[in-house]
Amino acid sequence: MTQLEAARKGQITDEMRRVAAAEGIEPERLRATIAEGKAVVPANVHRSRKRPCAIGAGLRTKVNANIGTSGDYADLAAELAKLQAAEAAGTDTVMDLSTGGDLKAIRKAVLERASVPVGTVPIYDVGTRAVRDQGSLAAMKADDILGAVREHAEQGVDFVTVHCGVTREVVQTLLNTRRMCGMVSRGGTFLARWMRQTGQENPLYERFDELLDIAREHDVTLSLGDGMRPGAIEDAFDAPQVHELMVLAELAERARAAGVQVMIEGPGHVPLHQVEAQVRLEKELCKGAPFYVLGPVVTDIAPGYDHITSAIGGALAAAAGADFLCYVTPAEHLGLPDVEQVRQGVIAARIAAHAADIAKGVAGARERDREISLLRRRRDWEGQLAHCIDPELARTLREKVKPSDEETCSMCGELCVFKLADNGSQQE
Amino acid sequence: MTQLEAARKGQITDEMRRVAAAEGIEPERLRATIAEGKAVVPANVHRSRKRPCAIGAGLRTKVNANIGTSGDYADLAAELAKLQAAEAAGTDTVMDLSTGGDLKAIRKAVLERASVPVGTVPIYDVGTRAVRDQGSLAAMKADDILGAVREHAEQGVDFVTVHCGVTREVVQTLLNTRRMCGMVSRGGTFLARWMRQTGQENPLYERFDELLDIAREHDVTLSLGDGMRPGAIEDAFDAPQVHELMVLAELAERARAAGVQVMIEGPGHVPLHQVEAQVRLEKELCKGAPFYVLGPVVTDIAPGYDHITSAIGGALAAAAGADFLCYVTPAEHLGLPDVEQVRQGVIAARIAAHAADIAKGVAGARERDREISLLRRRRDWEGQLAHCIDPELARTLREKVKPSDEETCSMCGELCVFKLADNGSQQE
Repeated sequence: MTQLEAARKGQITDEMRRVAAAEGIEPERLRATIAEGKAVVPANVHRSRKRPCAIGAGLRTKVNANIGTSGDYADLAAELAKLQAAEAAGTDTVMDLSTGGDLKAIRKAVLERASVPVGTVPIYDVGTRAVRDQGSLAAMKADDILGAVREHAEQGVDFVTVHCGVTREVVQTLLNTRRMCGMVSRGGTFLARWMRQTGQENPLYERFDELLDIAREHDVTLSLGDGMRPGAIEDAFDAPQVHELMVLAELAERARAAGVQVMIEGPGHVPLHQVEAQVRLEKELCKGAPFYVLGPVVTDIAPGYDHITSAIGGALAAAAGADFLCYVTPAEHLGLPDVEQVRQGVIAARIAAHAADIAKGVAGARERDREISLLRRRRDWEGQLAHCIDPELARTLREKVKPSDEETCSMCGELCVFKLADNGSQQE
Repeated sequence: MTQLEAARKGQITDEMRRVAAAEGIEPERLRATIAEGKAVVPANVHRSRKRPCAIGAGLRTKVNANIGTSGDYADLAAELAKLQAAEAAGTDTVMDLSTGGDLKAIRKAVLERASVPVGTVPIYDVGTRAVRDQGSLAAMKADDILGAVREHAEQGVDFVTVHCGVTREVVQTLLNTRRMCGMVSRGGTFLARWMRQTGQENPLYERFDELLDIAREHDVTLSLGDGMRPGAIEDAFDAPQVHELMVLAELAERARAAGVQVMIEGPGHVPLHQVEAQVRLEKELCKGAPFYVLGPVVTDIAPGYDHITSAIGGALAAAAGADFLCYVTPAEHLGLPDVEQVRQGVIAARIAAHAADIAKGVAGARERDREISLLRRRRDWEGQLAHCIDPELARTLREKVKPSDEETCSMCGELCVFKLADNGSQQE
């Protein structure tokens, strides 16, 4: 039975209980939200997780960190170090997007070591092997594509990105549109190219019922991928993107009807003034299905700082209702991230998520700001540093420029507003 | 004659011409905006600037970098290095907020070396000297406070923060309000404390006409300081903040009537869902006066990352109409920033400003994103790196994880969507 099927039958599962406790909400409220299809608990039946999480309405905005090898850098130890760094920095999930080395073994290692739910993109396996071993994406078989999803499900993967919306019709809409950067989704591009080479329809669409059977059997949450997500500000909210989203909305409905947990993936590169509208459209079209956005980055000009451009877009998206932020690291658009960039990506995404949670009125969010502000007013530096999102960095920065008076900081010193008094602070 | 007086007489000054050229707009349009009081050109008559700028409606969102010594760290050379770093990173203005060492000499050095408009907070001079030399803020004299503004004006300072809205009545509103963190504006706190100690009204309010005379004589732009800006999310948009803004709106009207250029300062610590409303209130109350916000930071929990929290708030504020973003560095709330943190602060604020300029439809903003996206699609790496907001960092990050194929990056390698083709990119 999937978490969705259990929720519909009125059952509160062990995962729901643990997640509700972590969120500080009633398990019954979580169950009802899952039953409506407005939240998911990615929890493959073959795997247990130390830190399960729920993603969706009324819950803390979650953060995902992408890790994984590439053809150029295929070092398992390095990826496991990134996994550890991402978890230490507070990520809620990880996705293993490996495309280099022994993909199955890497996935196994990640699944064994991760405390959090793990996601993958099965088409990467199939595409990578086809290109690497047979020299062409055309070597992919429809059965292989579904087979990869099954293999991942059996290995214990909690959620999979499946680009079911890259249909022949949607690709035609893409070709009819003068897009600056075309498709930038790798999985989507693999499929579109294969479809042109073979003349076949996307098997993830055509054989969606089989996909649902696999997902239901292992309780793999389907994350319906946005192959048409814009890869440039210029391409945002265009016909291919909206066309694909309409297809995904239909498929989400079918998934829910089949008792399969489902969420929707979103952009990408989106100008700031469109972010809210993008979220509202998804929420309406997809009847409140959890929305999982990649960034969005709000400008194309800042490679090296895309953790910041995506913190801006992510905060805005989550405040408008997006439920799940895929981090973007400073290495995005430049190369594979290292451990430190993974850490920075997670922290930036968590800042965006938390800022949004204050705006959304998520339980407990505002209290964290109250606590640290109170400690600041009291000049309780130890307390303040301990309450920071990254206590270690905050301490390092403070110690780099030590104040002569330990009660103050080196910017204000004796001119500290809290020390001057008469600043109207609430009296204790 | 001030820039405002010239604009009202229909004169296009040399500064207006240079600024309009840099913005890519008609000088006449800029003149009309200045005449309406919706834009300012901080341009003290005693000083020439290599890179003047205008701040206000229809213009590129500007960025300010705060530099300056503190009691604990008073090294002129270090501050001049920060000035250089801030300008190299693309700041539009700098403020010298020094409170340690020979304040007049530091200011002179900054004014001589800066290519951009320079701002100051004259009350820091008076307050610092009173505390340092006489042991108490009570030693400040009303004449000294106005005298400091005059001294700065004569030295060539282009804009000054003056906390004219910290009136007895506004302070009473503060005391009637249960604020978490009271006042966090240093200048505002100096004045409030002095007012309680001496029983006098704020001279910057009581003698506002004298202040206007000084400002008009030297064409110093008044930046009406927000002594009541919230210093915690919890305190945002409360009675003292709004009461002060109402006073500032009246004073802005008087300034414009006197031919004095004026802008309004804003918060501070603001939850994401209030940012737009804060800007709209200022724009309405103050009849479109340029709005200069500090951050805003959208959560209190991220010292060490407040360049990111303020990039989120700043982008949102500027998209809603704020005209001028004061940067916040990673050192904020922890200590005095160093050169690298100054650089990071400027870049983060520029990213926020640019993201907002796309949203606001500022001339030329979107074109920059189009250019770099086109280069990305063409896999023109040299071009891409050169078009980044920080080309040096982007190049360093790319070279750290070199791809085996120079046409790609080390994340995707041969699986590069632009290389696979069939991704629907616009054909050339």
